[in-house]
Amino acid sequence: MPQLSPRITTLNGDGDDGWGVFYRARTMIAAGTPVTELTIGEHDIGTDTSILAEIHRSAAAGHTGYAMVPGVRALRDTVAARIAERTGVPTTYENILITPGGQAALFAAHMAVLSPGDAGLFIEPYYAVYPGTVRAASGQPLPVPTNAEDAFLPTYDQISAATRSAPRARSLLINTPNNPTGTIYPRETLDGIARACRAHDLWLISDEVYDTQVWEGEHLSPRALPGMEDRTLVIGSMSKSHAMTGSRIGWICAPAEVIPPLIDLATNTTYGVPGYIQDAALFALTAGPELETSVAEPFRRRRALALSILEGQDIVRVIPSRGAMYLMLDIRATGLDGQDFANRLLDAHRIAVMPGESFGTSGAGHLRVALTVADDRLAAALDTLTTFAANLARETA
Amino acid sequence: MPQLSPRITTLNGDGDDGWGVFYRARTMIAAGTPVTELTIGEHDIGTDTSILAEIHRSAAAGHTGYAMVPGVRALRDTVAARIAERTGVPTTYENILITPGGQAALFAAHMAVLSPGDAGLFIEPYYAVYPGTVRAASGQPLPVPTNAEDAFLPTYDQISAATRSAPRARSLLINTPNNPTGTIYPRETLDGIARACRAHDLWLISDEVYDTQVWEGEHLSPRALPGMEDRTLVIGSMSKSHAMTGSRIGWICAPAEVIPPLIDLATNTTYGVPGYIQDAALFALTAGPELETSVAEPFRRRRALALSILEGQDIVRVIPSRGAMYLMLDIRATGLDGQDFANRLLDAHRIAVMPGESFGTSGAGHLRVALTVADDRLAAALDTLTTFAANLARETA
Repeated sequence: MPQLSPRITTLNGDGDDGWGVFYRARTMIAAGTPVTELTIGEHDIGTDTSILAEIHRSAAAGHTGYAMVPGVRALRDTVAARIAERTGVPTTYENILITPGGQAALFAAHMAVLSPGDAGLFIEPYYAVYPGTVRAASGQPLPVPTNAEDAFLPTYDQISAATRSAPRARSLLINTPNNPTGTIYPRETLDGIARACRAHDLWLISDEVYDTQVWEGEHLSPRALPGMEDRTLVIGSMSKSHAMTGSRIGWICAPAEVIPPLIDLATNTTYGVPGYIQDAALFALTAGPELETSVAEPFRRRRALALSILEGQDIVRVIPSRGAMYLMLDIRATGLDGQDFANRLLDAHRIAVMPGESFGTSGAGHLRVALTVADDRLAAALDTLTTFAANLARETA
Repeated sequence: MPQLSPRITTLNGDGDDGWGVFYRARTMIAAGTPVTELTIGEHDIGTDTSILAEIHRSAAAGHTGYAMVPGVRALRDTVAARIAERTGVPTTYENILITPGGQAALFAAHMAVLSPGDAGLFIEPYYAVYPGTVRAASGQPLPVPTNAEDAFLPTYDQISAATRSAPRARSLLINTPNNPTGTIYPRETLDGIARACRAHDLWLISDEVYDTQVWEGEHLSPRALPGMEDRTLVIGSMSKSHAMTGSRIGWICAPAEVIPPLIDLATNTTYGVPGYIQDAALFALTAGPELETSVAEPFRRRRALALSILEGQDIVRVIPSRGAMYLMLDIRATGLDGQDFANRLLDAHRIAVMPGESFGTSGAGHLRVALTVADDRLAAALDTLTTFAANLARETA
């Protein structure tokens, strides 16, 4: 066999990525052992039947041939109008490329702004796929460490320090509302990010796929900040907002000059998105707010439930949570790191959570809990987890 | 605005790519002028309703969440069995990655075998997206010229000559049955290709998306040739075989060691294919041969019709056609090049065909005719085209 490109054989990096707990849980489930799975950010409901009906209607009506590569015009218009309305930034279809999912949008954004060997920055703790996405675009992934004590909110100084270690830093990827921490970046954090991007001439790639999951305060898109419209690529998706994870449909919102080369890239990498799925997304986005609210509501409710359980003890500390479908828990008072805690919790109680280490070293000593099981199971799991943590803390003390 | 990566701004190369006729035809149609469109390789039928029903059944049954990134196991099994049966090469799901379309498979294959700056070879005339696909993977596109007099079949010597001009040649992309020429590579051509790949340690990327459109002789997959299984990546798709162009589903068949890194790449670039589309593909592949035959039949019939019309004159020469949904016509006897002929034909008779120059300089003086309109319109268009050519030849003489 001839050699493969090192680019494709090193995508996952060389560290232990902390996904052992996840794969062990999956193996237990496959073997018939019941596990409460709080690992992955996927809804416990399917896509709404009204959206599925629209997929079928569009396909049966004949929208089964090649769709236009940039996306169906009416969908591009609707996404643009939605963004304009929420941010106040004038936005048209010429700012929008429809992509086969948010991940394809993240990859395309990095392909657009990085040349091979350029550094792509992202905030730590990070969504697990970020480093590999930068590597897939032949970039050098560079995490920007943050502190648990600051709720993992990045600062101008932290970003600037990272750029000083990377002369070819070209982009910064952020995510708010945030996976894995559940924080929402406040204005002053976004101001610092924007200032750093301008000072170091970075593209800002703003992953906003959780923008309908806001439990406290409000989501601000950094594209709306002064001087940022021309250097920001916003990543959007129907996955989290409309429980359409499996349908793989998302978008990039970018300066109009960036869309034609992004269309060229799409022509050569994916050749568009199924027309009937685009029609269904259009239906979902114009169906009124009830659909989105009903998808978000369980997470709002479960977050409140989880916080009320966690308030009853002081061993497990919650990172201040304002959005998304996750809670980040600080379990350092138990004396264990996240991986050790998660493995023991799985063995002792068949509850699977993600170790904070899965999201970079800044997440060490933490756990991410996905709010993706029914309320009673979630409550029982958190009761067990806090008792387990209290017992560990007593043993350690 | 910060700079974009040159990678994304130069995807289309800098030559005139001969697509002017296509865009002019589209503009005329949009303005209400009827045009006989023989440009693009898309069926004039939609996806079969039985396949659409299966999309709906699967989605309604709940297959709307994230599918496994490598593809649904039953689909991988079925694709593998199909390939094993047709080629005699033992093949399992571990050789198969399901992709969101054949284009995504082509891109992923080049990402896997090229490192930035490596040369990716392909045979000229070529499917228009090939050079951009190599560029998107940060490779250097290198066409291998062939001769109309040899039916554009590539030889060992032509491939070897191209590798000598590119010290970092790492892959060769071929396509049989061929777009744009309608040829099918005979065994001796494939033997020469295989010998060249072994001699120059090239990966062979074999685009076989037209493998159900065989009108004369048989399709041979070069993966079945001695010593080729370990250096061949086969690209397949449901687009042409099952008129599922818009559904974006295809695959790569590769040595088993190549699949895990390809899965890593997919995780970071596309994150899988909709589960309900995979289920529909599985249905279509196991529905018996009638579905495939009914999709291929119109092209078989129209090719025979077209050849019978073209036999009645000697100005327009047909490249020996054995498969796919195209005919390549040599119009050099008219004294015009392909672009000039196609533009004049569009103006005079509102018939749109692709100039051979769209597929690389080897295609100069030729036209590609897609057999994608109803028989009577195709017959009328070819009558007109041959009369138009004869008149031009008389003027020139």
